[in-house]
Amino acid sequence: MSQSTPHDAPALYGQLLSDKECGWYLSDQAQIKAMLKVEGQLALAQADVGLIPQEAADAINQATQLLEPDLVALAAGVASAGVPVPALVKALKKTLSQDFARWVHFGATSQDIVDTALILNCRELIKIYRQRLLEAIRLCVQLAEAHRGTLIAGRTRTQQAIPMSFGLKVANWIAPLLRQFERLEELVPRLLKVQLGGAVGSLAAMGDGADAVVKNLADRLSLQNAPSWHAQRDSLVEFSGWLAMTTGILGKMAEDWLRMAQTEVGELRFSNGGGSSTMPQKCNPVNAEIMVTMARQNAGLAGQMQQCMLHEHERSGYAWTQEWLLLPQMLMGTAVSLRHCLEGLESLEISAENVETNIAKSHGLIYAEAATFALAAHMSREDASRYVAEACEKVAGTGQHLFEVLKALTGHQLEIQSIRHGLLDGGATKAWTDEVLESAERLIKMG
Amino acid sequence: MSQSTPHDAPALYGQLLSDKECGWYLSDQAQIKAMLKVEGQLALAQADVGLIPQEAADAINQATQLLEPDLVALAAGVASAGVPVPALVKALKKTLSQDFARWVHFGATSQDIVDTALILNCRELIKIYRQRLLEAIRLCVQLAEAHRGTLIAGRTRTQQAIPMSFGLKVANWIAPLLRQFERLEELVPRLLKVQLGGAVGSLAAMGDGADAVVKNLADRLSLQNAPSWHAQRDSLVEFSGWLAMTTGILGKMAEDWLRMAQTEVGELRFSNGGGSSTMPQKCNPVNAEIMVTMARQNAGLAGQMQQCMLHEHERSGYAWTQEWLLLPQMLMGTAVSLRHCLEGLESLEISAENVETNIAKSHGLIYAEAATFALAAHMSREDASRYVAEACEKVAGTGQHLFEVLKALTGHQLEIQSIRHGLLDGGATKAWTDEVLESAERLIKMG
Amino acid sequence: MSQSTPHDAPALYGQLLSDKECGWYLSDQAQIKAMLKVEGQLALAQADVGLIPQEAADAINQATQLLEPDLVALAAGVASAGVPVPALVKALKKTLSQDFARWVHFGATSQDIVDTALILNCRELIKIYRQRLLEAIRLCVQLAEAHRGTLIAGRTRTQQAIPMSFGLKVANWIAPLLRQFERLEELVPRLLKVQLGGAVGSLAAMGDGADAVVKNLADRLSLQNAPSWHAQRDSLVEFSGWLAMTTGILGKMAEDWLRMAQTEVGELRFSNGGGSSTMPQKCNPVNAEIMVTMARQNAGLAGQMQQCMLHEHERSGYAWTQEWLLLPQMLMGTAVSLRHCLEGLESLEISAENVETNIAKSHGLIYAEAATFALAAHMSREDASRYVAEACEKVAGTGQHLFEVLKALTGHQLEIQSIRHGLLDGGATKAWTDEVLESAERLIKMG
Amino acid sequence: MSQSTPHDAPALYGQLLSDKECGWYLSDQAQIKAMLKVEGQLALAQADVGLIPQEAADAINQATQLLEPDLVALAAGVASAGVPVPALVKALKKTLSQDFARWVHFGATSQDIVDTALILNCRELIKIYRQRLLEAIRLCVQLAEAHRGTLIAGRTRTQQAIPMSFGLKVANWIAPLLRQFERLEELVPRLLKVQLGGAVGSLAAMGDGADAVVKNLADRLSLQNAPSWHAQRDSLVEFSGWLAMTTGILGKMAEDWLRMAQTEVGELRFSNGGGSSTMPQKCNPVNAEIMVTMARQNAGLAGQMQQCMLHEHERSGYAWTQEWLLLPQMLMGTAVSLRHCLEGLESLEISAENVETNIAKSHGLIYAEAATFALAAHMSREDASRYVAEACEKVAGTGQHLFEVLKALTGHQLEIQSIRHGLLDGGATKAWTDEVLESAERLIKMG
Repeated sequence: MSQSTPHDAPALYGQLLSDKECGWYLSDQAQIKAMLKVEGQLALAQADVGLIPQEAADAINQATQLLEPDLVALAAGVASAGVPVPALVKALKKTLSQDFARWVHFGATSQDIVDTALILNCRELIKIYRQRLLEAIRLCVQLAEAHRGTLIAGRTRTQQAIPMSFGLKVANWIAPLLRQFERLEELVPRLLKVQLGGAVGSLAAMGDGADAVVKNLADRLSLQNAPSWHAQRDSLVEFSGWLAMTTGILGKMAEDWLRMAQTEVGELRFSNGGGSSTMPQKCNPVNAEIMVTMARQNAGLAGQMQQCMLHEHERSGYAWTQEWLLLPQMLMGTAVSLRHCLEGLESLEISAENVETNIAKSHGLIYAEAATFALAAHMSREDASRYVAEACEKVAGTGQHLFEVLKALTGHQLEIQSIRHGLLDGGATKAWTDEVLESAERLIKMG
Repeated sequence: MSQSTPHDAPALYGQLLSDKECGWYLSDQAQIKAMLKVEGQLALAQADVGLIPQEAADAINQATQLLEPDLVALAAGVASAGVPVPALVKALKKTLSQDFARWVHFGATSQDIVDTALILNCRELIKIYRQRLLEAIRLCVQLAEAHRGTLIAGRTRTQQAIPMSFGLKVANWIAPLLRQFERLEELVPRLLKVQLGGAVGSLAAMGDGADAVVKNLADRLSLQNAPSWHAQRDSLVEFSGWLAMTTGILGKMAEDWLRMAQTEVGELRFSNGGGSSTMPQKCNPVNAEIMVTMARQNAGLAGQMQQCMLHEHERSGYAWTQEWLLLPQMLMGTAVSLRHCLEGLESLEISAENVETNIAKSHGLIYAEAATFALAAHMSREDASRYVAEACEKVAGTGQHLFEVLKALTGHQLEIQSIRHGLLDGGATKAWTDEVLESAERLIKMG
Repeated sequence: MSQSTPHDAPALYGQLLSDKECGWYLSDQAQIKAMLKVEGQLALAQADVGLIPQEAADAINQATQLLEPDLVALAAGVASAGVPVPALVKALKKTLSQDFARWVHFGATSQDIVDTALILNCRELIKIYRQRLLEAIRLCVQLAEAHRGTLIAGRTRTQQAIPMSFGLKVANWIAPLLRQFERLEELVPRLLKVQLGGAVGSLAAMGDGADAVVKNLADRLSLQNAPSWHAQRDSLVEFSGWLAMTTGILGKMAEDWLRMAQTEVGELRFSNGGGSSTMPQKCNPVNAEIMVTMARQNAGLAGQMQQCMLHEHERSGYAWTQEWLLLPQMLMGTAVSLRHCLEGLESLEISAENVETNIAKSHGLIYAEAATFALAAHMSREDASRYVAEACEKVAGTGQHLFEVLKALTGHQLEIQSIRHGLLDGGATKAWTDEVLESAERLIKMG
Repeated sequence: MSQSTPHDAPALYGQLLSDKECGWYLSDQAQIKAMLKVEGQLALAQADVGLIPQEAADAINQATQLLEPDLVALAAGVASAGVPVPALVKALKKTLSQDFARWVHFGATSQDIVDTALILNCRELIKIYRQRLLEAIRLCVQLAEAHRGTLIAGRTRTQQAIPMSFGLKVANWIAPLLRQFERLEELVPRLLKVQLGGAVGSLAAMGDGADAVVKNLADRLSLQNAPSWHAQRDSLVEFSGWLAMTTGILGKMAEDWLRMAQTEVGELRFSNGGGSSTMPQKCNPVNAEIMVTMARQNAGLAGQMQQCMLHEHERSGYAWTQEWLLLPQMLMGTAVSLRHCLEGLESLEISAENVETNIAKSHGLIYAEAATFALAAHMSREDASRYVAEACEKVAGTGQHLFEVLKALTGHQLEIQSIRHGLLDGGATKAWTDEVLESAERLIKMG
């Protein structure tokens, strides 16, 4: 049996770029097992509808559970047919008497089996993603709660802008993950559906009971019933977009981590950071790097998946094959990114001291906007703006604190504590942080 | 004023690769108009909440309606700031007395205005997409109804497989478009939301009434209320995925058209096809070509949009700017593809004669699967398969019709009419075609 | 030991989507072996320059040849450090006395070893590509020679345009492959170069003999000497572009095959085509499908490789890691496409009969341009054009042959043999086909 | 006439995201002008060879110089034919007597004209790129020369590693640009070639003088002579890869700028940075942001261009059309990035003080590797490593300088000046910086 899959990074990089739990559902074995399950349940469904004899169906179903196909023979079959099903069906038939064998895969086409098996494995992967996402959200909620009172420099376009609550910053990591749960709930009924269409999607060979077979098979597999979607790949593409958005959201979180972890910023450090033998001071943010890697990789692959919608007629050999090169990578990339996210959240250490030092470093320039609004209580906004601009220049030249310079210019002594309080809790900070954290907690409770 | 935008193809290619109706909402003017609207309604919202004087708000709102900013000055401002808002605010303030001017853009950041204006224009574009999609579906329903009784060669992997109902083939073009309506309904509340966060997304400068201002502004613009999403681009990315899926679905339809229109196939011809002066027999399928072009283009751009999720901290200058290069192209590409789809549907002519000729051309080989199932009524499936395989080889060698050969081999005369009837109406064809067409008609009725 | 890599498709799909010969150079073992070779030669180079003791270097080099590292320990090291080198160096040191061990990996950084090892394996892969490309060209030359006298319908934009020499069509498959040899020759000196820079690319730890060490190492490995290129990925990106262009060129060839193999066209058939148990007439063009798949896949991955140029400072963790996910896939994809191309060329059968039938099918319309030019010998081009256009319409209505209709309209009897001769050998056909075939033969001779 | 093109960003963003000088060569007018030039020179070439009357050729050529076609009519023609040439030829013929008009566009196909015109405009753009690249290199050389003696923190994977020469850092920006000149020289002969093939690339309609016409036309346009390459897009794809590599190299430079310009790093500041009215301390690095934007955009588009290689048969309508959506954007993006690079290089100000402060900030930890190598002169490397690691931990806890701690631990006083000198000039720094700067100066001299 194969010991790895294209989706499973090689052993050497396995713990860095792969994921064992999810890797199973992307393995040859899991695919073969799922395909056999579909063949077995198809036979039972066809017997229920009276299309094939019940004894044949029972025998086929049992055989699918016992079969351990010769991977070498299957692989040769794949090379010749371009799909694994014909060789698998042949192996299955070999284990059955001729009378039963004739009913194997009755009226179905290879794509019916491959697609439905894929959907079954996607369902298992989605369970793992949900679980990991919930855990990531839970850890973020903890972090946000712990730091609602921590003022941190807000930065836009590489520049310190104004201070903000670190709790709100973390809430902004959480919020899009909550929307991913909404999206997942919506797309799942479109995604987790049976594929059964026969040669060209009409199930002509199954006669008049055809749609009853499909419904029965869907019920047996706990999938949605649906007309054949051989050349309609929209729901898989929608799902691939969700995967890329998930890694994108995690990647944005990691971008923040990477910048907070820079030597010169020093606000965050990973206790599990990668080291260097000759530079013991180094602490490489491996988790965050992999999260960005997977975000950028999945982004590009999501675009490629969109290309795979362009089937021609009832099935395109190449559009379908390319999906096989893309979707497993994306499924694995998402699993890997989530695993590194959890490791990162568990290993990250915030240096409250450096967070504050970075705010202080600007000699009050970071409070320029807040100072303008505070001064505007005593004068026109224009005057306030002008004073602050003038003061900022002086600060840059002299290294005096902004508030000292403003006092000298305007006679008004701004109170830093009140300004900091306004930045921490004022504006929409409290309302929005509450809103996100409460939604997150509801979601965690529901599981 | 600029007469076009990067999203608007140049005049020379304007009617081929651009779209006038949608182009407006992607023009400089429409963007400026929407930004001014946001500034005006923001002032009114802030007055409602008591943050700024009502007279100032009224004056600002009125000024936003009257302002015709100097595009040259704005463009210079964009070059310097990297965003259009500072220069626009400056121009707006110039038209107001100092007492009122001070309240313009109060506590907001440039991105608040640009993003909310974008959302307003997206809303208008979505209306146009809905309308065109409905019309495309309506035309496809007509085509499907007209051809439920037409048997056409089903083709997989470039090869004729078995005949199928052309009505079902068309239903397969419709079905994913119906799902696009579902998806649109789901994503719209996440997409059409206000953006208001101030410098770093905390609205600190607006004080304690901040979230009331956001709610009020959202109501005024009939958008969803939401916390600031400056660096959370998931909903725009989700929408871009929807755009690419739309063009992908149309692109798949066009792939079918292109192959049906091939000279050697001849099943479809466009009455508006592009000609050649020296080759009068040519009829280039321009509409279909553009639909495939836009599908492949949007596919790649959708992947790029996913890359733009990777903001760092509270705003990334480059991730945000790249969105401006991508989303307008995708919005335009979708409009263009839909327009060509409608033109194509209105111009396509089916040659029932060639459709039938192509089926007949194989001397019955295309009925091989159906023949096997029909013979299986008289013998085991294995025997039936064996006879048919043997007969197929004879057909290839002799040019005799499959059914003649089978008669000679087995003594059974298969009835072509009954087999054709089974392929047209049997299997799941009727049920699935009905299901899609009924859903389509319900949707069209609701509008 | 791992038996496959992410680049190696899993066993199930191994013969379809993977390649054994190239897979070796992408395996964990080959990478480890190459990294050990670099460490060994580095030590020898440093001894030559007098930086480390010769006995230490000899011992290290010998140890690198004997070491069979524990993959489990290495993998754990990769997970922690994000790169395989620290754990490999640790394993290597363990086999040496402390006096020698201290000189292992002296002054080098992990990236030096990983990159140089990659380059060594790329060199081997390039040899295989060259060999397969030459063989593909040789087979195409045979095909072109065999069909210089075969007239085939030239098709543009899905429509038959005018007939052309099939030999020229094949020459058009060959010509871009010849340019790929030119490009390869040009890029190889930029690509196959040593990487040695130490921590930040300055080799500071190696003192004044640093650049002599690099030169010596380059000589030992038969690579180009070059300054460190840790964060300059242009030459790898250039190579990835070459890989994608190679698969793109093969993909275009396959697009032609796929259309020639369509049931309705029938000009080409693969003797090794994938079959269907219930549709014995099917002959799925698996080789061509995979060639298109790999072309589209490599195209997208080439765009992703371009993204990986964006390192920050002296090394980006994520830009570098993403390369590892991309380049091996592209290297494998190119190998796979070339293998399928060779199989396809060996299995393709041209049906001269169907080629001619397709030309004949249009009742002479395909000769419309040639007829215009022929008639223009007797009248003005305008008149000729007008007559031909008129005649074309009649042909469409009546099914008469174009030349009959023209005779009736103009009195001139066009000679089909002379027109066909002109299309086969006239124009630039002969000159250009000769030019391409002669260049190809020169290249094959040089090997 | 059109006032902009899709390639020309709209007026509002024109100075930020577009480029006037290059925009001309991407405008409708420039395209029309170039197409007319090709038609005129084609006629002259055909007269030279005796294919058409000299007087007709002269008249046609003159007419192409005078024609100012009605853009509205052309645009309508494009919409109908999918290409601009038929309507342009029609307009051209209208200005000529019937006897001359008949020889316009004789035996050519639309793609011949569009492609050759594109190549002519690409040649002009390449001149501009060369000029700007040379200027960028010149400014970088100045910067490198000015800072060969500046020690700056080398950073890998977000962490300070060891100090290095800023001159070498700048040399690393230059080196890949030098390789781009090499690549350009190599690809230009493959790119700047004539396209002339007629309907299907055989020039059948031009009779036996066909290849002489091509050669003559190539000479007249100072392009390479070449067989028709209608469906062989490799050389355009190669060029698009070069464009993306160029913006990628500039994007990497900009990534360094962005990080050096971060508030907390403060090593670089742009005198032309974008400001904020309420946050006067901000200095947004607009140039660098656009350079990264264009790098990421071109990267994705380069992948899309690779997709466009997949023509089918003698011309694909959609693969060709998609090129029109891609290549102009890439050509413009490259121009824009180069312009911003020049602006950035002219506006950047290095803060030597902050550069040094950042080195000093780590209390000597950044010298850890150098300290190890220095101590190894007095003890084994293992002991040195162990002492340094131990000292690093103490530094982190106590804030003492590494060298003090090491003195206490080992008794050895490391001399910081000698260590800094080794980092600045030692290793391969001097050799490699010299090598790059000398190559750059040679290139600048040759121009």
